[in-house]
Amino acid sequence: MTDYLATPGGLVPAEQRDREEEITRRVLESFEGCADPRLQEVLQSLVRHLHGFVREVRLTEQEWNAGIEFLTRTGHITDMRRQEFILLSDVLGASMQTVTVNNEVHGDATEATVFGPFFVENSPEIDLGGDLAFGAVGQPCWVEGTVTDTAGKPVSGARIEVWEADEDGFYDTQYGDDRMAARAHLFSDADGRYRFWGLTPTPYPIPHDGPVGGLLEMTGRSPMRASHLHFMVSAPALRTLVTHIFVCGDVFLDSDSVFGVKESLVKDFQEQPPGTPTPDGRDLGERSWSRVRFDIVLAPGS
Amino acid sequence: MTDYLATPGGLVPAEQRDREEEITRRVLESFEGCADPRLQEVLQSLVRHLHGFVREVRLTEQEWNAGIEFLTRTGHITDMRRQEFILLSDVLGASMQTVTVNNEVHGDATEATVFGPFFVENSPEIDLGGDLAFGAVGQPCWVEGTVTDTAGKPVSGARIEVWEADEDGFYDTQYGDDRMAARAHLFSDADGRYRFWGLTPTPYPIPHDGPVGGLLEMTGRSPMRASHLHFMVSAPALRTLVTHIFVCGDVFLDSDSVFGVKESLVKDFQEQPPGTPTPDGRDLGERSWSRVRFDIVLAPGS
Repeated sequence: MTDYLATPGGLVPAEQRDREEEITRRVLESFEGCADPRLQEVLQSLVRHLHGFVREVRLTEQEWNAGIEFLTRTGHITDMRRQEFILLSDVLGASMQTVTVNNEVHGDATEATVFGPFFVENSPEIDLGGDLAFGAVGQPCWVEGTVTDTAGKPVSGARIEVWEADEDGFYDTQYGDDRMAARAHLFSDADGRYRFWGLTPTPYPIPHDGPVGGLLEMTGRSPMRASHLHFMVSAPALRTLVTHIFVCGDVFLDSDSVFGVKESLVKDFQEQPPGTPTPDGRDLGERSWSRVRFDIVLAPGS
Repeated sequence: MTDYLATPGGLVPAEQRDREEEITRRVLESFEGCADPRLQEVLQSLVRHLHGFVREVRLTEQEWNAGIEFLTRTGHITDMRRQEFILLSDVLGASMQTVTVNNEVHGDATEATVFGPFFVENSPEIDLGGDLAFGAVGQPCWVEGTVTDTAGKPVSGARIEVWEADEDGFYDTQYGDDRMAARAHLFSDADGRYRFWGLTPTPYPIPHDGPVGGLLEMTGRSPMRASHLHFMVSAPALRTLVTHIFVCGDVFLDSDSVFGVKESLVKDFQEQPPGTPTPDGRDLGERSWSRVRFDIVLAPGS
């Protein structure tokens, strides 16, 4: 009489289960000769999870083919300017899970979020109170705060890189010319304080005309990212922080396509009507502006 | 005081674990609106296993980058003639696991194995006892057997597709010209019997000059496939069988690079010295030849 075992995929006869486990065992064994123990560990875990997935869903050969075809299209749309595999990792939450694993909780250290594809080296340096727009269009936004360590000690001279999309939802690099705009770096002062003029963030979609966009559409998901402003903050002997701040009240906070939102990173961007005096006396004429505070806490370096 | 929990990846503080689980929960939730319940099931299982992998190995950002870069190279080498994603699935055993899941144990039905990339539609038909070589070089091999169902009833008129590499380890399609050789199809007779002349199989490497070859090299694995002859057998109301037979005594039986070997598929290819009379009276002159028997049992169709 056939012995049956319950699995997440339903009832599977014992002999069938043995055949499936035998395949996994052999593949794990094939990596036993790997000279790099970390590579061995990573590949053996990958194999266990990959085989577990195939067995759990009882993946059909047609579905396997669809997966191969999807990866092929993802590879073919990827070039120097577009990285569809990163998008895929992002929309499956694998990027955010990796960020979370690599930025373990440490006291009240500020939470990290995804790096994204739009950081550029060699951004212009601005003074404290300077403006990162360099011609990018959007509502001015006064951003200020402090940089401290987890003991509350101010961090002076921390390098703060900031970058963001313009009000049309595009980063400078997406225009296909040489412009460098809506990005800059500055340094915290002797008391760990910083301040600059940015743009009030607006929502935008991730590139969704490729296979990843197709996946989102098939599954009823939105390609929109919640409005955000990118930060990368570094200082000697402290863990480099890559994060965003998000706009309180943004309609996409609960459906951010890359799962980057953390409650602690949602900030109150306070709208200021035209004519409201600015913190540094800048004259904005008839324009409205906004202001936000973001106090940054860096964990110890490893 | 911080609460720690043991995980396969080591001790992780409870708050950290909560953050990681929260990411997975949100990603699973994002697929709740998927209109296709099967797609939802497959993607949610994929996400659980993918996140489980990242968390279990504590994947570093550098390793994540290496993974993205590996997939990118895999995508770029893939074209109409080369499918590096299938090779990747093959060497990770995912192809063989999928085949095994899709060909559940059914009585003594012959076991299936990987399809491979070398099947071609519209192979020439040969008569019973015909020769599939069509100019391909190799030692002649007399192959015979029966096709029955799992009740032992002969299956007449079963379509038997056979294909294999030549003695240099190449399939016809790898020569880059129009030749069609070492492949054919035939039909079982009224008693379910079949017989044909093939070539004694020889071992060959899978394409290993790309990213997948690099992975095998880094992990100390061989790209060689155990010597084999491909079969695809189909008949009305029966499950189509895609399989190989392997050569007993082949040195690569225990290290087949795609994990296709099953003990039940290893057959005794009996060497025949020059001058040994052939079953059909064919005169092979001074050449040696071999013979093998392969009785095929087809499961019921679904």
